[in-house]
Amino acid sequence: MVLLDGKETSKKIQEELKEKVDQLKKEGKKIPHLAAIIVGDNGASLTYVNAKVKACEKVGFESTLIKLSESTTEEQLMKRVKSMNENPDIDGYIVQLPLPKHINETKITMAIDPAKDVDGFHPENVGRMALGMPCFLPATPAGIMELLKRYEVPTEGKHCVVIGRSHIVGSPMAMLMWRNELPGNATVTITHSRTQNLKELCLQADIIVAALGKAEFLTAEMVKEGAAIIDVGITRVEDTSKKSGYRLLGDVKFDEVAAKASFITPVPGGVGPMTIASLMINTLKAIEMKELI
Amino acid sequence: MVLLDGKETSKKIQEELKEKVDQLKKEGKKIPHLAAIIVGDNGASLTYVNAKVKACEKVGFESTLIKLSESTTEEQLMKRVKSMNENPDIDGYIVQLPLPKHINETKITMAIDPAKDVDGFHPENVGRMALGMPCFLPATPAGIMELLKRYEVPTEGKHCVVIGRSHIVGSPMAMLMWRNELPGNATVTITHSRTQNLKELCLQADIIVAALGKAEFLTAEMVKEGAAIIDVGITRVEDTSKKSGYRLLGDVKFDEVAAKASFITPVPGGVGPMTIASLMINTLKAIEMKELI
Repeated sequence: MVLLDGKETSKKIQEELKEKVDQLKKEGKKIPHLAAIIVGDNGASLTYVNAKVKACEKVGFESTLIKLSESTTEEQLMKRVKSMNENPDIDGYIVQLPLPKHINETKITMAIDPAKDVDGFHPENVGRMALGMPCFLPATPAGIMELLKRYEVPTEGKHCVVIGRSHIVGSPMAMLMWRNELPGNATVTITHSRTQNLKELCLQADIIVAALGKAEFLTAEMVKEGAAIIDVGITRVEDTSKKSGYRLLGDVKFDEVAAKASFITPVPGGVGPMTIASLMINTLKAIEMKELI
Repeated sequence: MVLLDGKETSKKIQEELKEKVDQLKKEGKKIPHLAAIIVGDNGASLTYVNAKVKACEKVGFESTLIKLSESTTEEQLMKRVKSMNENPDIDGYIVQLPLPKHINETKITMAIDPAKDVDGFHPENVGRMALGMPCFLPATPAGIMELLKRYEVPTEGKHCVVIGRSHIVGSPMAMLMWRNELPGNATVTITHSRTQNLKELCLQADIIVAALGKAEFLTAEMVKEGAAIIDVGITRVEDTSKKSGYRLLGDVKFDEVAAKASFITPVPGGVGPMTIASLMINTLKAIEMKELI
């Protein structure tokens, strides 16, 4: 069994990006600049955004963090978005979700210039991905594809079962896996809450992507010997033995599934760190995307 | 076995659309106006375009057919596209594909205003479809969904195997079938040229959508008793007994598969006529889409 070490891979990607930034500096070229807008004081969101900004600094990108108060109106946020679109110094930016309830998330996402949409959430980027055109890929599926590539997990002609059809993980994951590219070229089954024979389908899978958000849902009896397992889930469960008071569980019952798997991602340290690495890759790409979108 | 009669259903849809147009006329509202641009003298393309324009006339839409010579430059076509985008009288339009080789199809498709893109080929419409937002659905998959709906073919929790991953049929078909809507909510497997165990997968399917373009590919031994069969293929094969000198074959070996199927589309007269009906539905929708895209 090979552990798909997202933490280590993410570090390596960040080192590679740092080298590229150093090269850009040497050549006197523009350094990628990522901005992030966060509205309100959601603790988890602040942690995520800070991690993104910190990662930017580490690879040598320029970064800007804009913190707006919970009472920011939709109109005020829209103005910020427009000024981001118009600012030639900002190559890519994200608006951290979720937004406070009085702001329409779809409206805000739609207002982001697709050429600066490093989260890849704008419909134009989603459509470009589906059509195999140049685009920003959504961070989590892109991070998984990067892991599959770097660990040379076989995908061509393999049967990949995706559990979950969310817009940010399950659906794009399915599309990337069936694309006529490598990694990809897999036969893909997408399953969800209405699926009737999930166990039977999982038992046929050469690759399983678990992205349903239920702690330790995927057990050994659902997995074929030698399957590759990607665990996107991350659930906090109370654990008084930990200093933090909780521990993180994935969607996969790790120990028993690992015993049957050919490849498996741990939680934490698997898909999670790859998500930030993907965002950094998208930011580097943002400069050339200006010409392509 | 129920025959999914696309010809009859398409007629019925066109009657319904005619009633709606009559209603719009009574209310003094704008009548939907579809334009079609065709470049060159490709016989099949001319037949398709003429059928579309004729269908428009039948339901009472306004229509404009612009025929441009084979020697039209990309720049000249681009000018036409821009004038279509700007013309407030045109609600929706299509540029008939394929285009002559000296014109970049992607560039032209990208230039079409997504709010007038009744073919649903622009990445913004593809992305909106993937995200479940208001959009123009591509005609063939939308026509199939309409057939499934009108014949009440069960889809929720059913296993749908799609054969083929093309951008205009297989991929969007998969996305529509897994959506959290009815028809839809199916478990979906997308298969293609690299799939290794197609027969085994097809034998599990409650619904098969055959869209690979190989005459009579799907045989009875690949189909489970009681499955619903959608045949998107259309291949001309020589037949001296016919006046035309050819007959049309689908991707499904009709007679033997029909004997096992619960529902099946014939070729011709199944999916084909639904494609034009979908385009008409999109054209009617185009007036309200101005506000939504």
